[in-house]
Amino acid sequence: MTKIEALQRIATRLRIHSLRMTTQAGSGHPTTCLSAADLAACLFFDEMRFDPRKANDPAADEFVLSKGHAAPLLWALYAEAGIIPLASVLDLRKFTSDLEGHPTPRMPWVKVATGSLGQGLSVGVGIALAQRLDGAKARTFVLMGDGECAEGQVWEAANAAARRGLCNLCAIVDVNRLGQSDPTMHEHDRRAYAAKFKAFGWDVVTVDGHRIPKILEAYKRIGKAGKPTAIIAKTVKGKGVSFIEDLNGWHGRPLKTDELARALGELGCLPDVDAKAFVKKPRPFKAPRRGRQGPVPRTAYAEKTATRLAYGNAVAALGKVDSRVVALDGDVKNSTYHDKFFAAIPERSIQVYIAEQNMVGIAVGLAVKGFIPFAATFAAFITRAHDQVRMAAYSFANIKVCGSHAGVSIGEDGPSQMGLEDLAMFRPVPGCVVLYPADASAAEGCVATAADHQGMVYIRTTRPATALLYGRDEPFPAGGSKVLRRSERDEAVIIAAGITVHEALQAAGELGRDGTAVRVIDAYSVQPLDVGTILAAAKETGGKVVVVEDHYPAGGLGEAVAEALAGRAQVAHLCVRELPRSGKPQELLDAYGLSAQHIVAAVKSFRR
Amino acid sequence: MTKIEALQRIATRLRIHSLRMTTQAGSGHPTTCLSAADLAACLFFDEMRFDPRKANDPAADEFVLSKGHAAPLLWALYAEAGIIPLASVLDLRKFTSDLEGHPTPRMPWVKVATGSLGQGLSVGVGIALAQRLDGAKARTFVLMGDGECAEGQVWEAANAAARRGLCNLCAIVDVNRLGQSDPTMHEHDRRAYAAKFKAFGWDVVTVDGHRIPKILEAYKRIGKAGKPTAIIAKTVKGKGVSFIEDLNGWHGRPLKTDELARALGELGCLPDVDAKAFVKKPRPFKAPRRGRQGPVPRTAYAEKTATRLAYGNAVAALGKVDSRVVALDGDVKNSTYHDKFFAAIPERSIQVYIAEQNMVGIAVGLAVKGFIPFAATFAAFITRAHDQVRMAAYSFANIKVCGSHAGVSIGEDGPSQMGLEDLAMFRPVPGCVVLYPADASAAEGCVATAADHQGMVYIRTTRPATALLYGRDEPFPAGGSKVLRRSERDEAVIIAAGITVHEALQAAGELGRDGTAVRVIDAYSVQPLDVGTILAAAKETGGKVVVVEDHYPAGGLGEAVAEALAGRAQVAHLCVRELPRSGKPQELLDAYGLSAQHIVAAVKSFRR
Repeated sequence: MTKIEALQRIATRLRIHSLRMTTQAGSGHPTTCLSAADLAACLFFDEMRFDPRKANDPAADEFVLSKGHAAPLLWALYAEAGIIPLASVLDLRKFTSDLEGHPTPRMPWVKVATGSLGQGLSVGVGIALAQRLDGAKARTFVLMGDGECAEGQVWEAANAAARRGLCNLCAIVDVNRLGQSDPTMHEHDRRAYAAKFKAFGWDVVTVDGHRIPKILEAYKRIGKAGKPTAIIAKTVKGKGVSFIEDLNGWHGRPLKTDELARALGELGCLPDVDAKAFVKKPRPFKAPRRGRQGPVPRTAYAEKTATRLAYGNAVAALGKVDSRVVALDGDVKNSTYHDKFFAAIPERSIQVYIAEQNMVGIAVGLAVKGFIPFAATFAAFITRAHDQVRMAAYSFANIKVCGSHAGVSIGEDGPSQMGLEDLAMFRPVPGCVVLYPADASAAEGCVATAADHQGMVYIRTTRPATALLYGRDEPFPAGGSKVLRRSERDEAVIIAAGITVHEALQAAGELGRDGTAVRVIDAYSVQPLDVGTILAAAKETGGKVVVVEDHYPAGGLGEAVAEALAGRAQVAHLCVRELPRSGKPQELLDAYGLSAQHIVAAVKSFRR
Repeated sequence: MTKIEALQRIATRLRIHSLRMTTQAGSGHPTTCLSAADLAACLFFDEMRFDPRKANDPAADEFVLSKGHAAPLLWALYAEAGIIPLASVLDLRKFTSDLEGHPTPRMPWVKVATGSLGQGLSVGVGIALAQRLDGAKARTFVLMGDGECAEGQVWEAANAAARRGLCNLCAIVDVNRLGQSDPTMHEHDRRAYAAKFKAFGWDVVTVDGHRIPKILEAYKRIGKAGKPTAIIAKTVKGKGVSFIEDLNGWHGRPLKTDELARALGELGCLPDVDAKAFVKKPRPFKAPRRGRQGPVPRTAYAEKTATRLAYGNAVAALGKVDSRVVALDGDVKNSTYHDKFFAAIPERSIQVYIAEQNMVGIAVGLAVKGFIPFAATFAAFITRAHDQVRMAAYSFANIKVCGSHAGVSIGEDGPSQMGLEDLAMFRPVPGCVVLYPADASAAEGCVATAADHQGMVYIRTTRPATALLYGRDEPFPAGGSKVLRRSERDEAVIIAAGITVHEALQAAGELGRDGTAVRVIDAYSVQPLDVGTILAAAKETGGKVVVVEDHYPAGGLGEAVAEALAGRAQVAHLCVRELPRSGKPQELLDAYGLSAQHIVAAVKSFRR
């Protein structure tokens, strides 16, 4: 049996598995598996190098299934490679199986969750960058759909890959002509895709995606031009089963039992071939040992400092003693203060330009390979990457995100630049820790917490300089809070975070002069919230709670506190209740009801 | 004085105004105004047609300042055109002025808020499409920065414009080489931008952006190739002031008073020219009268129906009697059921393919011209357009967004396809109404409410078919709720929405058989919440409230209720508290604690 024959047989087996498992599950996307079966067979059983016994091997080539709805094909590939038992694929989409409807890293060979289209190439850029940083000869392959090339993020990723000359990155575009609901924009026009990838600086090969010798030839060209390579493959959706081939209306639709029988009749019986024998092992390679080389020094601040500046200092200091740390920035590093890191450690600094979706995708890819990426932009603009953040959580990605310039306290630039919904965006993210430091030391402490936390952490920083509250070595663990004012006579508790902590302290001073003692809590850990301290404070102050935050009413600190206290206290919630406008920072804090005088009034207004 | 001389003088005036107003404000972005001054002078005072007395004129060409940080240039243009008094520009960035740091439609000539980069071209596509739908000869111009071309959304918009042959759309790219923190990716390489736009199907002209005769020539080519036109203009950031020209570090930095004096010395005194005399009026045009032609018929459903299907029926029915309604869809119209509209009214249906950011941007552009766009995709994927939704709110855009397939109740497709954070995304959006129907009639009622509401509305729909609860003509106003079970003996209240209303009713039945009466509220209007009914119910049931929602804990119905009730009731919150996985819908509702049995247990667990 020639290699070509063997690969053809493997491809047929992949098709049969994909059809069987989706019919068994009663849902799923078989036709998109059939279009990519030949491309995937050649990739896994001739081109890629990996060891089926090692899911995490720095020597191995990596694979990202960007078109995540082709999950059955992926499970079939793993079964053929001997990674999972063949019988297990029939558990597809069951609650008890890790072979989910779209890939997630519950199955350890899956490095990132996919299924929201157009994200895989960014992750591939991150993985390929990590391989290069480690000096590995390994490559990264991303299998994409044609439909998902309509997502702008694909072109953000294409830019980044070309810009960095990632010749170890290959995008395989399965041009099967049909989207979910309609033919795609360019249908079978391979030249349209080729022109785009060329214009974005890639080497491009077009190929018939069902002719195995041609596919093998195309793969041989990968990386030869010193650029990332795009293989534009013309394929047929449903290929191999005459009555579904190239037909609209068969996306996300499994065959019925009788249709499956007919299809299997056309494909023939499961061809005999030992696919495992065709797996190519990688050449041995040991990645450099990365980690913490010593304690992270913290800065002793002497005067008012913006938390964004202290954050920048801390990430740079961390990077100097931890070779896993990478900084990414969306062309605002002189505002987020990632420029400190960029200046100190250029080799682990990534300017992603104004492309926040790609920034988060690259960060996820770097995290896959053990790096600890810190990605920063304005809090307002991180909303651009909401879907990528969501998918990062489903990837269990160990990434850190910083949103600077939060709230109306930025002042004159106006609402488009104010992050007023970022807490509501990050709090629902499963497992995400949300930290919001009120002073420079807290910012440094939050960076330390973020670095040591396994999983996603969001840090919210403030534009203006703020007074110092904490000593140099104060710890800021996730789930903690700081009680800044406290007496036995406290008549209410003010819960604040970030910029509003300073307003709360001022209000407490004013109230104190009037003879009203109040407790002040810095709830720097917005999530998890320090529910114990807050409940105790509410109880000890007669259940009178003011929450003040530079954020819209929904989804932020105020609702978190209301939920935690439900039934146990009155809560007055001061926050930005209308669409703000340009103005001076203090003017805006006052206009939108966040300043000390409003806090004083709220405390005075409680039912006694 | 020749036209060329006049335009040069106007450009110098624009430069002087931009420098003065930013120095006066003490913040802002003068250098980006200087690079675009010549392009803008030629556009406003020779190429574009508009009547300075009419901010909303269907005959007029439209202008979108995508590079929103050049706001001072825009205010200067309006002043020169006689739209606003020249003296008013010195109020830039003051709290009392509508001339904000980045443009917002508080100033009526600004049609959309900009300042989050890379969004203007999508809006331009929407406006140009609206002009074409209306049969206007008017054109749309979008002034873009080079840096923002790194945003993928630009290429989503480029695709859409080419696909639809929008020869009435022109993108002017101000290639001034410098971003905020670094030189841009392509610096002054105009060919790099040209190649990209060409590959995306545009006619491209490259030009020296400071040579007025060449600029005028370039503008003459707009639309001639039957394609959208991109003018790629090489410019110098800070042009005209020697000590800031082409220098990194001058983004977002006004001149100090002494620097301003030096700059004005170089630019000379304010040149004498009556710019107003150069404004070209449009040829008269009356847009077709659009509006409601009759009552919107509602469907009488006879059996279990998915809310997404009823939503699709309702939008199609609405579109048939209201010529303002447009449907947009991100290649999932057979899932959102926008395919009903597409089949009935193809001329007002827009397939945007898999490009959610562009979908929302186009919707905003259509709304600018008086259309009522309904844009739909999976609730999970609308997170892709979070930043665009945010900016739409700052644009006061009258758009309607539908997120289908909300929650774990979608079943086997897995978490990447489940919208579990969409309520937390839309609730903070200023002014946004959030509706979540529980049955087919409610879905139709919510569409009717959305159509008649001026402003953004989000409608959340469910994948599986659900039982019928309401009669055909039941109204579902914003801010309302429906009390579905009620007695004098109610011992608790269950607040639910969408799919969980059915679980709540089942739980109420079971509890009733055990002798425990409970109230059930369908809180279909998640925002504004019907606080009055909820407070009354809590009071009448001894302050025992269960909230059950198919959403993550933060930012959804549960926290909304907790905030509303703060201090007045115990709240048990049933929601999805971990990262879900694939499984059958009912299996997942049960596994994640949302099903009737969990509600029963929650009611029984209250402190008495």
